[in-house]
Amino acid sequence: MTEKSTETKVEEAQAAALELAKYSDDRRSEALHAIADAIDESHDEILEANEVDVREGEKLLEAGEYSQALVDRLKLSPAKLESITEMVRSVAGQDDPLGRTRTARKLDDGLELYEQTVPIGVVGTIFESRPDALVQIAALSLKSGNAAILKGGSEASESNRVLYEIIREATADAPDGWAQLIEARADVDTILKMDDAIDLVMPRGSSQFVSYIQDNTSIPVLGHTEGVCHVYVDSEADLGMAEEIAYDAKVQYPAVCNAVETMLVHEDVAEEFLPAIAERYAEADVEVRGDEATRSIVDVGAATDEDWSTEYGDLILSVRVVDSLETALEHVTTYGSKHTESIVTDDADRAGTFMRSLDSASVFHNASTRFSDGYRFGLGAEVGISTGKIHARGPVGLEGLTTYQYYLQGDGHCVGTYAGADGTEYRHEDFDGSWTPGSLSE
Amino acid sequence: MTEKSTETKVEEAQAAALELAKYSDDRRSEALHAIADAIDESHDEILEANEVDVREGEKLLEAGEYSQALVDRLKLSPAKLESITEMVRSVAGQDDPLGRTRTARKLDDGLELYEQTVPIGVVGTIFESRPDALVQIAALSLKSGNAAILKGGSEASESNRVLYEIIREATADAPDGWAQLIEARADVDTILKMDDAIDLVMPRGSSQFVSYIQDNTSIPVLGHTEGVCHVYVDSEADLGMAEEIAYDAKVQYPAVCNAVETMLVHEDVAEEFLPAIAERYAEADVEVRGDEATRSIVDVGAATDEDWSTEYGDLILSVRVVDSLETALEHVTTYGSKHTESIVTDDADRAGTFMRSLDSASVFHNASTRFSDGYRFGLGAEVGISTGKIHARGPVGLEGLTTYQYYLQGDGHCVGTYAGADGTEYRHEDFDGSWTPGSLSE
Repeated sequence: MTEKSTETKVEEAQAAALELAKYSDDRRSEALHAIADAIDESHDEILEANEVDVREGEKLLEAGEYSQALVDRLKLSPAKLESITEMVRSVAGQDDPLGRTRTARKLDDGLELYEQTVPIGVVGTIFESRPDALVQIAALSLKSGNAAILKGGSEASESNRVLYEIIREATADAPDGWAQLIEARADVDTILKMDDAIDLVMPRGSSQFVSYIQDNTSIPVLGHTEGVCHVYVDSEADLGMAEEIAYDAKVQYPAVCNAVETMLVHEDVAEEFLPAIAERYAEADVEVRGDEATRSIVDVGAATDEDWSTEYGDLILSVRVVDSLETALEHVTTYGSKHTESIVTDDADRAGTFMRSLDSASVFHNASTRFSDGYRFGLGAEVGISTGKIHARGPVGLEGLTTYQYYLQGDGHCVGTYAGADGTEYRHEDFDGSWTPGSLSE
Repeated sequence: MTEKSTETKVEEAQAAALELAKYSDDRRSEALHAIADAIDESHDEILEANEVDVREGEKLLEAGEYSQALVDRLKLSPAKLESITEMVRSVAGQDDPLGRTRTARKLDDGLELYEQTVPIGVVGTIFESRPDALVQIAALSLKSGNAAILKGGSEASESNRVLYEIIREATADAPDGWAQLIEARADVDTILKMDDAIDLVMPRGSSQFVSYIQDNTSIPVLGHTEGVCHVYVDSEADLGMAEEIAYDAKVQYPAVCNAVETMLVHEDVAEEFLPAIAERYAEADVEVRGDEATRSIVDVGAATDEDWSTEYGDLILSVRVVDSLETALEHVTTYGSKHTESIVTDDADRAGTFMRSLDSASVFHNASTRFSDGYRFGLGAEVGISTGKIHARGPVGLEGLTTYQYYLQGDGHCVGTYAGADGTEYRHEDFDGSWTPGSLSE
């Protein structure tokens, strides 16, 4: 069998997308259950392929080119496969994101406009070496009626190939070619040029990688650059609460983008708060880097200007003492990445000012930054977290994979009727209703 | 006075955007009324500046470098200025697009998530030589809390400068620098590089120009490439209705993007329909270019393959006879630009198939394609029409100038509580409510 070209794969996906858009929610959900069942029945085959990837990963680890954390992410187990199929079934069970009427408006008698949610079309996804990511992204795409180009990390290539084949065979009733696997790095550059066929590119990975994608395509990009998240401990904070939040936000899982990287502490509470949290952090092996004021209170290393804009992704935290809420806001605006920021305070007005003043995707009051996540937000699974502001922001679930289309139902209406000084006036009355072909609601 | 650099202007806009985001709807609307009043009081000054532009435009017209239609668009009059201030006041009177709660969800007891609409931030707009465009875009930006970089066509530079100064002075109470005028073509290239400061670029103009913007920036672009719109006259069409719609869609205003460019006619009705509509078109000086089957029925010129994908923007129309609804759909999918398509039929099922099968921004049943417009759709004014599918689609009004932000209100909540096998389960219950700083709704 000769391998299809990337161009052919994308064209197939484009044709499939038009068909898939017409599938009912029942058919899309049935296909998802078929995927889950097929994965359940193929544990041996998947784990065998995954072992090949893991062995290669371990060789890289020994050669010092790969970390233990990456090998761990790569590795599948029967339990992990079960949690994957559970996720697929939960995506199947979610409310249909398509065909929702966002607005129904009577423009005039017999002329009704409906704004309805529809799939985006063809989505190009590029993700890290985690075989579960392939299944998750394919599942969310299918539920939302989108064709998906799937490019996983090369370290997971054996696992991805087997999982992709299982998905393809299990969805033989879905439009042929709705999911396409691409494997070579060069194929990414090919798809970036296919702006006529691909509607959205969603890269996951390092900021540099996402920037590379943004700089090399005219296709809209939904991506995640970096997560330099802040916790601000206000003068009016409950310091016991602040300690728990600051600890959870850094220690609970430091490798992820929603972990805190910089803590700002109001000077009124710094002397009481810093020694207590520093002790907790020391127990958890967190390296604290402080500004001068911090170091005059606790014995920690020095933070440089570079620290304020660094996403450590590790047990490292920079700390700055600020003289006011305003200085804290200025710091976040200057150095932050608009991902997630949290204020700890008992003063509602100060919380309001903090939250209204920042244009980060997520702004929290008295809660850990780690809540910034599609599952925790109740979006079901997530395809990624967006640090951009266009189309979708923060954790992106099924809704972020939809767009809308205007349906207008008339009865021979012409614009000429409404033109000029004597033209009929539009009515523009919103109503509750949904589109049915050929009939008027009101 | 030394002119500020473009970089300085954009930075000022960025700072102003953060302030403007906190303004109440009342303050934003008051500022809009101040703009309208100031324009009312400055007719002489505006018309004087406009005369300079028009004189230059007429010189270009004489030199054959400019069309009469463009001079007409450039020209202001007292009546036109009144319609401009009416538009500004109507934007002021629209519902506040900001602070709307799109979702309120209880994640757990005492932990509430709100998805709230917020401004996008800094919007870079580039528009054609129509002085009313500057006012319209500035008004929509202000109402939606966005700072705006305004780059108008150079032919309108005198008018734009005066209108900009009037707007700036009238909104002295708004955050300084919320609107910035740039004039040189080179400044456009400067702003395209400022992806850290500008959140969205909205170009209006030719497809080539919009493609140039898309290819030369990593800032998200909301644009309009072209409008190759279709009217499909089905076998089950009321032919009288089809005649009115096909006539209106082409003749009512042929220069605009929502005018029809290709008409598809089912073969069962072609012999009856084509002679009738050809006569109407001939009376209106419409040049019809037909495929072979069309030419066997009416005496018109030949359409080439290039015609099917051409946006004439003029009194020219290509016509093809198709053997089925499916062929019509295939034609639109192959040659269309995903702008607006209309089916004329009395058969609801066939209308449904047509509308569900096309992924154009607007799909109509028994109505003229010319309805595809922000004002007619009831969006108030429009900043443009998007032929992309990401963020905003079709006519873009105030809602397209907003994004959302997640507000999370907790009481010391940490993610650790919910982790692992014994972790607390999330509740994820949606409720009706809106965010108030520091207090819980439920």
